[in-house]
Amino acid sequence: MDIEALGTDILAGNRRALARAITLVESERADHRAKAEALLEHLAQSGREALRIGLSGTPGVGKSTFIEALGLHLISQGKRVAVLAVDPSSARSGGSILGDKTRMGLLARETAAFIRPSPARSQLGGVARRSRDAVALCEAAGFDVVIIETVGVGQSETQVAQLSDLFVLLLAPAGGDELQGVKRGIMEMADMILINKADGELKAAAERTRADYASALMLMRKRAQDPEGYPLAMCVSALTGAGISQATERMEALASWRKAHGFWQQRRTEQAQNWFQEELRSGLMALLETPELQAEITRLGAAVARGTRTPAAAAREVLARLGPGQ
Amino acid sequence: MDIEALGTDILAGNRRALARAITLVESERADHRAKAEALLEHLAQSGREALRIGLSGTPGVGKSTFIEALGLHLISQGKRVAVLAVDPSSARSGGSILGDKTRMGLLARETAAFIRPSPARSQLGGVARRSRDAVALCEAAGFDVVIIETVGVGQSETQVAQLSDLFVLLLAPAGGDELQGVKRGIMEMADMILINKADGELKAAAERTRADYASALMLMRKRAQDPEGYPLAMCVSALTGAGISQATERMEALASWRKAHGFWQQRRTEQAQNWFQEELRSGLMALLETPELQAEITRLGAAVARGTRTPAAAAREVLARLGPGQ
Repeated sequence: MDIEALGTDILAGNRRALARAITLVESERADHRAKAEALLEHLAQSGREALRIGLSGTPGVGKSTFIEALGLHLISQGKRVAVLAVDPSSARSGGSILGDKTRMGLLARETAAFIRPSPARSQLGGVARRSRDAVALCEAAGFDVVIIETVGVGQSETQVAQLSDLFVLLLAPAGGDELQGVKRGIMEMADMILINKADGELKAAAERTRADYASALMLMRKRAQDPEGYPLAMCVSALTGAGISQATERMEALASWRKAHGFWQQRRTEQAQNWFQEELRSGLMALLETPELQAEITRLGAAVARGTRTPAAAAREVLARLGPGQ
Repeated sequence: MDIEALGTDILAGNRRALARAITLVESERADHRAKAEALLEHLAQSGREALRIGLSGTPGVGKSTFIEALGLHLISQGKRVAVLAVDPSSARSGGSILGDKTRMGLLARETAAFIRPSPARSQLGGVARRSRDAVALCEAAGFDVVIIETVGVGQSETQVAQLSDLFVLLLAPAGGDELQGVKRGIMEMADMILINKADGELKAAAERTRADYASALMLMRKRAQDPEGYPLAMCVSALTGAGISQATERMEALASWRKAHGFWQQRRTEQAQNWFQEELRSGLMALLETPELQAEITRLGAAVARGTRTPAAAAREVLARLGPGQ
């Protein structure tokens, strides 16, 4: 595989090249990893930046329909839109619940859109890195907006928020005790809460749900990165299109404000630093993965298990083998 | 400090030597750490094992009174009892909410008891290791039972469960929706749930609370490490002493059953392996703490933040400096 040619094709906005590159960064093979790194390092020079929108919502809130409506609206404004899925459940089931391109049939047909289902098999620990790399590839390919979607299952929202400039929570209208469903930690990550299905019979319930979340958001600690009125709760209907353009405007207004006030760059810098730390951590752990050290760890681990060595002393002995530095 | 003499005194059951050794393992000074490790490694040969009882309960459930009643009961059976506190809140407040020995005045007066308040200042990350070391010291000093108590604030229960042979949850009688208060993850760690204050006016409420928890425990997944009837929920009164000897019997019966069926050793082995992995992790991270590498990390971190280097490539460059192995 010619990495330089692939990079050139991606920079030219070639969607097939982009798809191939994402497959490359998703691979766990060492030679693929090395090529993926070379490609990413090469593309990092492009300086292109998309608006990265993280979107979380549990199954049934109408995530696909909403993304399609949002994507088509953005395309009608002349923008190019990429959709990536972060699907932690695929690590267990082997199949992807977000993998079906046909669920966004209209959007998938647009040449200005790129939809990438989540990888079918993935080790949970690597999900964040692969998603991060895929976002970087979409940015280099010149997409204006990258939507990173996930199902709401705790850990994955945090990963997606770490990848996004804006984090949007999509909810369905609820009756009664609707705040129960969303954990406080998730609420605190949200820049916008959108209540979908605000149409027909559910319209009134959607408005009540919105009001409840708006109150809850008001009670939360003010963040420096938010202008007046954010985080906010709005009603939308992916079905009728109601509220979609308003929601888009509010996202863009927030992005502009953050850019103007330095918070956009600050957030990206913090995210990049976190990824760097994470790469250092996993790279350090990988230092132990030689047959010699693994044998040593097994031997000392048995002594620790018997209680004849302390964990600290055994660890020190392993680490002493790593190099002259110790 | 003569480590060998200190070790000999601890093995002889000298409480003053034990207290000094705990102060040593709580220290963050590098020379103290080295001495602490040498001491622990020396004492690891003793082969002494205590029954480690982890005890969690939120403020107000009567934890001190219960520990005093339990401790005095064990001493009346001819046992020696140590009480250690794991207090994560002290990391923030600078003061220890569990630090007052006088709250267990009767127990503190017994020569067969050793009560150690939690360290006044502590970095959260190191709490688990210091507590683990303190438990090991108490075992080497020949205590038959080590009670490790914590306030119920999430993270600390998990740490204490990782240190214990048995994990006991102490609760107060509640009215109405009492299961709300305890997170499912904590329930799943519990071997016994004790409803304290089952006396006077609260007796009936305690029994209702017990029945509710007993039902909840029955609904949980059966664990191989539990004999028939465990995990269980019982009523006790630290004030009147009702149920204390029965609760002690149930703890001892559980410990005996697990010993006979290999689960006691299996749990200790798993805990030791976890600590070993944790020591390896923190030891690896410490490899980066040289001035040269820190300068390199700062320099590359800035490039990552600017977007001109990818996190993975920057991490690889740092790790390449660690030794010839990379």
